[in-house]
Amino acid sequence: MPPEILTLDSLRAAYAGGLTPRALAEEVIRRREAWPDPAVFIAPTPAEALIAEAEALVARAPEPNSLPLWGMPFAVKDNIDATPLPTTAACPAFAYLPEADAAAVAKLRAAGALMIGKTNLDQFATGLNGTRSPYGAPRCVFDADYVSGGSSSGSAVAVAAGICAFALGTDTAGSGRVPAMFNNIVGVKPTPGLVSNAGLVPACRSIDVITVFAPTVGDAVEVRRLMEGYDLADPFSRPARPAGIPPAPRIGVLAGAEREFFGDAEKEALYDAAIARAEALGATIVPFDYAPFRAAAALLYDGPFVAERLAAVEDFLATNAADFDPTVRAIIEGARDRTAVEAFRGRYALESYIQAVQPVWDAVDMLMLPTSPTTATVAAMLADPVGENSKFGRYTNFANLMGLAAIAVPGGFGPSGLPAGVTLVGPAFTDDALAPFAAAMHHAAASGLGRDRAAPVPPPPAPFVPGGWITLAVVGAHLSGMPLNTELTAPGGVLVGAATTAPGYRLYALAGTVPPKPGLAHAPGFEGPGIAVELWALPPAAFGAFVAAIPAPLGIGKVLLADGSAVPGFLCEGHALDGAEEITGFGGWRAYRAARG
Amino acid sequence: MPPEILTLDSLRAAYAGGLTPRALAEEVIRRREAWPDPAVFIAPTPAEALIAEAEALVARAPEPNSLPLWGMPFAVKDNIDATPLPTTAACPAFAYLPEADAAAVAKLRAAGALMIGKTNLDQFATGLNGTRSPYGAPRCVFDADYVSGGSSSGSAVAVAAGICAFALGTDTAGSGRVPAMFNNIVGVKPTPGLVSNAGLVPACRSIDVITVFAPTVGDAVEVRRLMEGYDLADPFSRPARPAGIPPAPRIGVLAGAEREFFGDAEKEALYDAAIARAEALGATIVPFDYAPFRAAAALLYDGPFVAERLAAVEDFLATNAADFDPTVRAIIEGARDRTAVEAFRGRYALESYIQAVQPVWDAVDMLMLPTSPTTATVAAMLADPVGENSKFGRYTNFANLMGLAAIAVPGGFGPSGLPAGVTLVGPAFTDDALAPFAAAMHHAAASGLGRDRAAPVPPPPAPFVPGGWITLAVVGAHLSGMPLNTELTAPGGVLVGAATTAPGYRLYALAGTVPPKPGLAHAPGFEGPGIAVELWALPPAAFGAFVAAIPAPLGIGKVLLADGSAVPGFLCEGHALDGAEEITGFGGWRAYRAARG
Repeated sequence: MPPEILTLDSLRAAYAGGLTPRALAEEVIRRREAWPDPAVFIAPTPAEALIAEAEALVARAPEPNSLPLWGMPFAVKDNIDATPLPTTAACPAFAYLPEADAAAVAKLRAAGALMIGKTNLDQFATGLNGTRSPYGAPRCVFDADYVSGGSSSGSAVAVAAGICAFALGTDTAGSGRVPAMFNNIVGVKPTPGLVSNAGLVPACRSIDVITVFAPTVGDAVEVRRLMEGYDLADPFSRPARPAGIPPAPRIGVLAGAEREFFGDAEKEALYDAAIARAEALGATIVPFDYAPFRAAAALLYDGPFVAERLAAVEDFLATNAADFDPTVRAIIEGARDRTAVEAFRGRYALESYIQAVQPVWDAVDMLMLPTSPTTATVAAMLADPVGENSKFGRYTNFANLMGLAAIAVPGGFGPSGLPAGVTLVGPAFTDDALAPFAAAMHHAAASGLGRDRAAPVPPPPAPFVPGGWITLAVVGAHLSGMPLNTELTAPGGVLVGAATTAPGYRLYALAGTVPPKPGLAHAPGFEGPGIAVELWALPPAAFGAFVAAIPAPLGIGKVLLADGSAVPGFLCEGHALDGAEEITGFGGWRAYRAARG
Repeated sequence: MPPEILTLDSLRAAYAGGLTPRALAEEVIRRREAWPDPAVFIAPTPAEALIAEAEALVARAPEPNSLPLWGMPFAVKDNIDATPLPTTAACPAFAYLPEADAAAVAKLRAAGALMIGKTNLDQFATGLNGTRSPYGAPRCVFDADYVSGGSSSGSAVAVAAGICAFALGTDTAGSGRVPAMFNNIVGVKPTPGLVSNAGLVPACRSIDVITVFAPTVGDAVEVRRLMEGYDLADPFSRPARPAGIPPAPRIGVLAGAEREFFGDAEKEALYDAAIARAEALGATIVPFDYAPFRAAAALLYDGPFVAERLAAVEDFLATNAADFDPTVRAIIEGARDRTAVEAFRGRYALESYIQAVQPVWDAVDMLMLPTSPTTATVAAMLADPVGENSKFGRYTNFANLMGLAAIAVPGGFGPSGLPAGVTLVGPAFTDDALAPFAAAMHHAAASGLGRDRAAPVPPPPAPFVPGGWITLAVVGAHLSGMPLNTELTAPGGVLVGAATTAPGYRLYALAGTVPPKPGLAHAPGFEGPGIAVELWALPPAAFGAFVAAIPAPLGIGKVLLADGSAVPGFLCEGHALDGAEEITGFGGWRAYRAARG
């Protein structure tokens, strides 16, 4: 049987050990029914349908783990289409039967994942708390007096409760992050445009994103990578331009008057603890001014962008006003007197804030912010539904407006028994690049997985190499820890791993190079030990700039590896090898340098 | 004395021959006063001030042609700040005295250009015809019955009349292109965001661009390159990502029902002639469906974007409605009842059209459209100011909304004696890449420069290498005309020129390579003839992809040139040279191949 909290690795191991998708489906059904909170699902996939889906998977791909998400159970926020269930957006009168899966759901099902149900949400994804739904208010998995966070409330709880391995949320103001914190799980919020929104009920169509909740960073990023891709069916889809982040990042943290926790000293202390963890992991901490980010954030509800919510439901509102949650309705109706001039002025203001924070992005590689500065009980939320909610969005609302990537990671528990969390926010398309540090932060927090506070947090997975990057074999001064390694790490290069050249290579210590460098020479027919290399991946433009900066007598050609593949790698002009000391016997530059003392 | 039409080269030659900036200024003043159309300038730089500016230039930079635009006279559309003259936007009541030059003007003056005056325009840059100004309607330089085109009316006429070497316009709907056609000059419309708009009175702030009018493509692009650059003072400024276009481009042309000239058979025939010229120049002609571009274009006046014009002048309109041109006022006031919901829906529609035309951009490298499908007399324009104007924008209105680059080039004259023109439109940041073909089209049209129909059109200038591109020395199969040259031209690589290596290089014919390839080897101390190479520039990402695809035994290192510089260039693994035929004596691969027959 799988563990209490479902991770991709644990399920793969269980499948390899004989678990069947049908048995997994039956276990999911048991857990779904046993969970005491009735508000998590709006429409669970009926038991017989879920079992049929599991059996259809085995018919399609009999070999366990033969698809990337073979038999992985997942839930879908009920503003995203997933056949054959209706889409309600938590408004029963709005319900419709979608003709097809949303693009993201279709990709996950194609990858072998099993859709276990549609989850509750703040109606029309308008809210960050989880109480604005006629299907009830899902509760925090640690204390049923407290809100689950929203708007992706049910999805977050379903993962944290161990009912599924991952779940889809959406995020406009912070809905894919806040409930991750409140339930001690990871929330991956992609760069807007990276994952297609085709099949999503819009909230603010220009900035909505589909997100992933999972117990670990590695799982959530793995799922996101399977969902992403440019899609002509979504006008806001964008071709990815994956960007890198150095492994010892400069991290912007709150400072001065912008450090606001609304009196929640526990959350503030846990934020400070997260900063200390980041520093211990090698980050450079850079206090920055959050004010212009906050000004941008204010455009979302206090500015004209709320008109996007009205644009999304205007016709339905005209006929069905009484069917709305009163708070949601009041927010959306507030856009009725907004003019087109105000809309454009809002865009001007947003662009000016984006320019204003450019110096921050020159100074840091990512921001680390409290995911939410505080939490609230359901009672407190119902007593002040707008005021309490707006606190939650204090450090999330700007991210999609500014086109950024974010990962919310657990950040430990306070004396209250409730979790905290931080969100790492990076420039557009740093989605993969944020993951290693996010996973390291989660591992260092050692705060468990979802409701299981004792579950070991896995160490950071191998780095994700974004699609389209170029892999390079380095031999000498660019190896990890060597003097020129920063030429690879500074532009965000990713260490793919170690390798060895084919036997036909000789290595030489070049005379007079500063720092000392080797020259690698192909000697067809020579049967040497093979030379140790490292494989590093770089974005194409950074690879181009790297090559252009290499001084003679070195250059980049093709290097044959022991596995028979040929990759771009360092080579050396022949004249420079004349009279150079051959050091092939050391098997690599690192061993030679070590032997030299 | 300079020629009738002022080009940068002709003025540089005149300066080299003894012309002084003061004498040039006096000549400009004479021409300005002699031109029969009183509506060109709103505020000419006073004679004594212009002479003082010329003398100040000589005091600052005494050597002739010692600055990029040393002594080049230019005019500025009167919605762009240029001290000490007022900015009116063609609305006297709106006039203000700017505290500083607009960013673009400041860069041109720093480069040595002399500002000769502020030119007339359709009020608040709202129009494409030139009649909407209380300062009068500038006329077409070929027939005073006809409109000059607008809104940058005075700037276009000032260049076409030979009063200045270039002039700044602006372009939201087509104002930097339509008047270029009507006056037989070139209009360079940069990608939105490439040139800072700081110091510009906005029309539609999210899509306005500052443009350049000049007699030739080379001159206009040279000026644009001096103005461009990311500017934190302009919220819509964008870092450039220069993209390439192959030298034999695939060109999209109008087809079917979208071929609309409003009965102007002369203009239609001249469009066909331009297509024939493009084909003769090596382009592949690709008919495409203009309908989604036209749908996007309709958003500008018939959709919510007109609210940007209201946003720009709302306070002034509230107090000074009577001071507006009636047509301009009616257009702007039409935005009053536009809602924020409509504004966002307009943006959604725009994004969907941008997606819809993606397949067109997969099929073509640029579009070639009639700059305007027809023209009109001033009388006809005044009789139907909106209807006639909208015809002019038929093929221009989409370009800024879609974030594209464009160059309008002259396209010959018809029996009427009036000129036609075509606009080449390319993807974002193809500003430099469009220039070679645009210049070749102008040269092939041989239609003179501005009002001088007999002036020889100079041949295309050396290609412009965008900033940040990487220059590469190629030796063998990648040389022009050789089998692998398309690996450089397909991503838009630019031939910078020919060069020779330093003497210490040997060249070998590699055995068994397909296609045949040479190996270049550095042999320090060897005194050979030097090896002929070509220098090609590529965008960094394309350079990276090029390097990654090079098969063994070749690679990219550094090559020393005869001039002492070191550039990235081909090198060869030493083992591949063992036993290869040395062909150094031929001085290069091309000579060796020719000798081999």
